[in-house]
Amino acid sequence: MLIVKKFGGTSVADKERIFNVAERCIREYEKGNDVVVVLSAMGKYTDELIAKAREINPNPPRREMDMLFTIGEQMSVSLTAMALAKLGVRAVSLNAFQVPMNTTSIYGNARIKKVDTERIRHELEDRKIVIVTGFQGINKYNDYTTLGRGGSDTTAVALAAVLNADACEIYTDVDGVYTADPRLVPRARKLDTITYDEMLDLAALGAGVLHNRSVEMAKKYNVPLVVRSSLNEHEGTLVRGVAKKMERMIISGVALDENADRISVIGIRDQPGSAFKLFNVLAKKGINVDIIIQSIGRHGTKDIAFTVAHENLRDAMETLENSQDMLGFESLECNEDVAKLSIVGAGMMSNPGVAAKMFECLYNNNININMIATSEIRITVLVAVKDAVRAMNAVHDTFCLGD
Amino acid sequence: MLIVKKFGGTSVADKERIFNVAERCIREYEKGNDVVVVLSAMGKYTDELIAKAREINPNPPRREMDMLFTIGEQMSVSLTAMALAKLGVRAVSLNAFQVPMNTTSIYGNARIKKVDTERIRHELEDRKIVIVTGFQGINKYNDYTTLGRGGSDTTAVALAAVLNADACEIYTDVDGVYTADPRLVPRARKLDTITYDEMLDLAALGAGVLHNRSVEMAKKYNVPLVVRSSLNEHEGTLVRGVAKKMERMIISGVALDENADRISVIGIRDQPGSAFKLFNVLAKKGINVDIIIQSIGRHGTKDIAFTVAHENLRDAMETLENSQDMLGFESLECNEDVAKLSIVGAGMMSNPGVAAKMFECLYNNNININMIATSEIRITVLVAVKDAVRAMNAVHDTFCLGD
Repeated sequence: MLIVKKFGGTSVADKERIFNVAERCIREYEKGNDVVVVLSAMGKYTDELIAKAREINPNPPRREMDMLFTIGEQMSVSLTAMALAKLGVRAVSLNAFQVPMNTTSIYGNARIKKVDTERIRHELEDRKIVIVTGFQGINKYNDYTTLGRGGSDTTAVALAAVLNADACEIYTDVDGVYTADPRLVPRARKLDTITYDEMLDLAALGAGVLHNRSVEMAKKYNVPLVVRSSLNEHEGTLVRGVAKKMERMIISGVALDENADRISVIGIRDQPGSAFKLFNVLAKKGINVDIIIQSIGRHGTKDIAFTVAHENLRDAMETLENSQDMLGFESLECNEDVAKLSIVGAGMMSNPGVAAKMFECLYNNNININMIATSEIRITVLVAVKDAVRAMNAVHDTFCLGD
Repeated sequence: MLIVKKFGGTSVADKERIFNVAERCIREYEKGNDVVVVLSAMGKYTDELIAKAREINPNPPRREMDMLFTIGEQMSVSLTAMALAKLGVRAVSLNAFQVPMNTTSIYGNARIKKVDTERIRHELEDRKIVIVTGFQGINKYNDYTTLGRGGSDTTAVALAAVLNADACEIYTDVDGVYTADPRLVPRARKLDTITYDEMLDLAALGAGVLHNRSVEMAKKYNVPLVVRSSLNEHEGTLVRGVAKKMERMIISGVALDENADRISVIGIRDQPGSAFKLFNVLAKKGINVDIIIQSIGRHGTKDIAFTVAHENLRDAMETLENSQDMLGFESLECNEDVAKLSIVGAGMMSNPGVAAKMFECLYNNNININMIATSEIRITVLVAVKDAVRAMNAVHDTFCLGD
């Protein structure tokens, strides 16, 4: 078997943890398996590099920022190779130039295009544990790029895909994927399996265990993903194409995203193209918009409300203010005191009344629903931040997710 | 003109110094010159990396050590590129994969084989300041190597050679090459020019301004080297093939090396091959031997004494003890309380009596000479450590090096 294992920054934060990772890899290796390890930068090292850069240039060129970032993973992989050598196991560390890991050209947010497997296969045939820098790639100019948030997960899945690995294990500080964040919902339960689609919706909605792009890639190439703890030997959660029938529940999880703000555009002209123009202006600035509601206003106008991630709020408001004449609206409002609560589950499609059950639950708990959005496998409502955790627990209980 | 500038670790140790380097490069750039900058790792960063590695593995694989080391220079070059961007000048940082800088395969002590100039030339034509990582290369396995002590000087000279640069400026914390170490000899004087050969002997003897390999390479490719201060605009010392006639002195400098220890092999069999066997045993262990003296002993035996670098003393003694039967000597002695004092100068060849003048000076100052070795352009004596600095000043005065 060929197993790809990915460990995040906290898993390699210090000497003890690096040896923990090394020992874990050796246990797999000693079963006779081929082991490829993907590592992030140690602990808060990337933050330290950002601080170093900003001290010199508050607005550093992205190309040079990526040149600086990539040293973080190179440190992790070389130190881990040394730990494996100390434990008597042959290992080799490889950076993006050595793999090579080819990406698109956009610094800070590149996408993997092509992964060469020759060097890795050669080292595996030589019975070495191969340790690859996560998060980084090289572009057509032969410059370093980085893959953006959660990039190391994506590196691991890409390697698992091209190497046709038997599993891609993502190690984290929790035991797997839960029906809800256990820090917020005490009765949350760990799932044994979940589908890619469910995982995608949970990831997008702030479950935060896996990054979206890595799940999308796993789905596309049908890579069996396992989310498990680096601190114990528990089985974790298997993410795959189709869930077992017996296990399938109507909904598999509840997710909360407190990082959403609501913007309302009041009194926009009710004419064709007005919504397009509005969201086009935001898209050009790279601002993603979520839940959208349009309602009829007075005197031939309408109101459009939507949510944006908190870090984009100021930018979105400024962009809209600067476009007021062109878009022709009356006023703007924003509300930072909102949270997105979602239920996710592939079983929803064939079970009518799920939405109604959720709304009833919220009504019974006297929680006001601000906005609603639905897809085939999720229902999202916007509620006040003060109600969010209470709402989450109530919904979790209503759907008997605890067990 | 194309100028290669090399700055060591202290010159890029913090934000202020990085900006100092950046401004210095911009002044050159604004004259209309092409500027290639070679940088070492910041301050004591390489030492920090060694400590990190040793914490994990006291005897780390050299390949992984080089993988770890190379991040030091990558940090320097990316941060300096950011500083140049802040000052409004276009710059690009390049590592050994991007140059590419091809070396032999030996990790930790590789030699430069071939430097590709296409990328650098392209960036220079684009009117960018090009910042290259010193000290590092890649070998035929596509792995990082490092060039050993003083490696960044060698990188700079190699780049100056292949780019046919008009000058290779080595920036340091002193104003240039002195007739003796100014910290030990208060009347020491800065030299305006010195030949490659003189510089080689001074470097080998512990003057410590430039590393031997970089001077050898500069001589081979006739690269005009300038040693100057990063802290002021003084002219520095030009190192080149032939010194100007008018300036040529009999000797150009006095060097002291306190890092030498003396080993005496007593009563070795006086038969053909005994000296060969002795030094062969040491050479196999990679131990370099300097000044050698052989004298007749009693009863068909002889004594052989020589010096080794202090870090090799223990290893050399153990090696010889283990080979006592094979080499057939009576006993071993060692003396750590010795220093090598040398005078160096191309003028020596055509000036008989230089050695006599040196020995007379030492005799007048009541300094005992332990051993003597000479080459065409240098005379070295071994003296007691307690006499060393006094001897150095006396010799410096005798040859009127002060002015």
